[in-house]
Amino acid sequence: MLKCDGILISDTALFEDGWPTVTTGTRGICYKEIRLSGPKHDLHSGDGGPITNPANALAAIVASLHDERGRVNIPGFYEHVIDPPATERRQLADLPFDEQKYAEEIGVPGFSGEHGWSVAELRSVRPTLDVNGIYGGYMKEGANTIIPASAGAKLSMRLVPNQDAQDISRKFDEAIRARCPRTVRCEIIDHAHAEPYMTPPNDPALEAATRALREAFGRDVAFIRCGGSLPILSMFKQTLHADSILLGFASPNCNAHGPNEKVKLADLNRGAEAVVRLMGYLGG
Amino acid sequence: MLKCDGILISDTALFEDGWPTVTTGTRGICYKEIRLSGPKHDLHSGDGGPITNPANALAAIVASLHDERGRVNIPGFYEHVIDPPATERRQLADLPFDEQKYAEEIGVPGFSGEHGWSVAELRSVRPTLDVNGIYGGYMKEGANTIIPASAGAKLSMRLVPNQDAQDISRKFDEAIRARCPRTVRCEIIDHAHAEPYMTPPNDPALEAATRALREAFGRDVAFIRCGGSLPILSMFKQTLHADSILLGFASPNCNAHGPNEKVKLADLNRGAEAVVRLMGYLGG
Repeated sequence: MLKCDGILISDTALFEDGWPTVTTGTRGICYKEIRLSGPKHDLHSGDGGPITNPANALAAIVASLHDERGRVNIPGFYEHVIDPPATERRQLADLPFDEQKYAEEIGVPGFSGEHGWSVAELRSVRPTLDVNGIYGGYMKEGANTIIPASAGAKLSMRLVPNQDAQDISRKFDEAIRARCPRTVRCEIIDHAHAEPYMTPPNDPALEAATRALREAFGRDVAFIRCGGSLPILSMFKQTLHADSILLGFASPNCNAHGPNEKVKLADLNRGAEAVVRLMGYLGG
Repeated sequence: MLKCDGILISDTALFEDGWPTVTTGTRGICYKEIRLSGPKHDLHSGDGGPITNPANALAAIVASLHDERGRVNIPGFYEHVIDPPATERRQLADLPFDEQKYAEEIGVPGFSGEHGWSVAELRSVRPTLDVNGIYGGYMKEGANTIIPASAGAKLSMRLVPNQDAQDISRKFDEAIRARCPRTVRCEIIDHAHAEPYMTPPNDPALEAATRALREAFGRDVAFIRCGGSLPILSMFKQTLHADSILLGFASPNCNAHGPNEKVKLADLNRGAEAVVRLMGYLGG
């Protein structure tokens, strides 16, 4: 029923304000929740000692999900990962990404992550596993001496080509079940799956977009990948057999989805011009 | 200003309904809270990879607090522990404690804890470390893709003779600070300290209490320790230079501090009689 030659999406950011940018790919995602339950209700912690505390057990499982080199410790997690080509790594390294400035901007004392990769690489071309939320027992101010009846964690993994969200989901479940002590009960909930996506480097629209951006912004184009996910990209590919071009014009510190989200009007206007030019080239 | 010969406290439970019981000691407690903070606000988890996730870091620290033999993994934690004498272990082993029934009562599939000790021992004569609460990031229903700005855990350690709550508190702090990655900030909060307590085995009131209990209940007395804490016992000892006798008459499954807390009237009445008899013997 639906048909198209190609897709243009503006949902990404510039590498820097005023610097025209093509986002060449996005990470996929596999979002899970683990819930461990022990005693049928919270117990007085004076009974502690022989009881497997669901929150302690949860911490042990979550801790086991990374190794000492910062890699995700799930058997087979990296099995299908395609490392970025050397040219892409060089291109990314040549962009003036200021780690110190980024650390100050987000307020962290330093960076960590998988050994052997730069900060810019870690946040876009490498897969991750992050706790998005963790809960259990007494969570308000002050102290309460209980052994929680249950505890849980929401965890998301960002995926890169050629990881498959369903495959990773299965491997995650197997690892969790193997590591869960038999003295607590474990439930795993699936929240979301999305595949990673890359615009094919030989896509004809890519060349036209690069030319349009260069003309509208008056400078050379940066090529980066986005660390986030756009689930619709792989759906478009599958359903429409069409590829997507990602031209976004947001400021890199626009606070997307957050308070004080903002956009630079100059870049919005240049972006609009680039899109008009792109349409002309595609029609030609 | 205050002065007394001895102290009688009824705040403990019977070993079994109808079974007269002397509680010979209580565990101490050291209650702490760890708060790790990273980014100045929650970040989109699409930025994940180079950022030390406070919830992941917290899980790793909490997991590190036990070793693979179920012992508390804080340097020096067991340094001053006095193991219970062989006679006390034998006495405890001779009491008909039904582990299977206890597991069903509290609803757990099985037990764990420090290797080499029974369930009855683990919950009374051995020290513990339990998470009482853990929190961070998105804790409501469903999914939210964030890297939490912070995460925390409330942890309490139950202490046995001759551990010292202040000494354990210091050792805990040192271990946490040594294990906290430098890419997050760590705050440690003190919630509560209380010392373990043992009634001296040669306390003259102990003999009188045993006799009074035996007469009022018509059967031999059980001697157990309580896994919980009574901070006032060591305060009494320090301030009044007096020892305490612990004669409680609660049902072992009375749901103390919980919903449907209950007491058996028959044991309350026998207990009242035992206390009256004890007063008589002490006066004599």
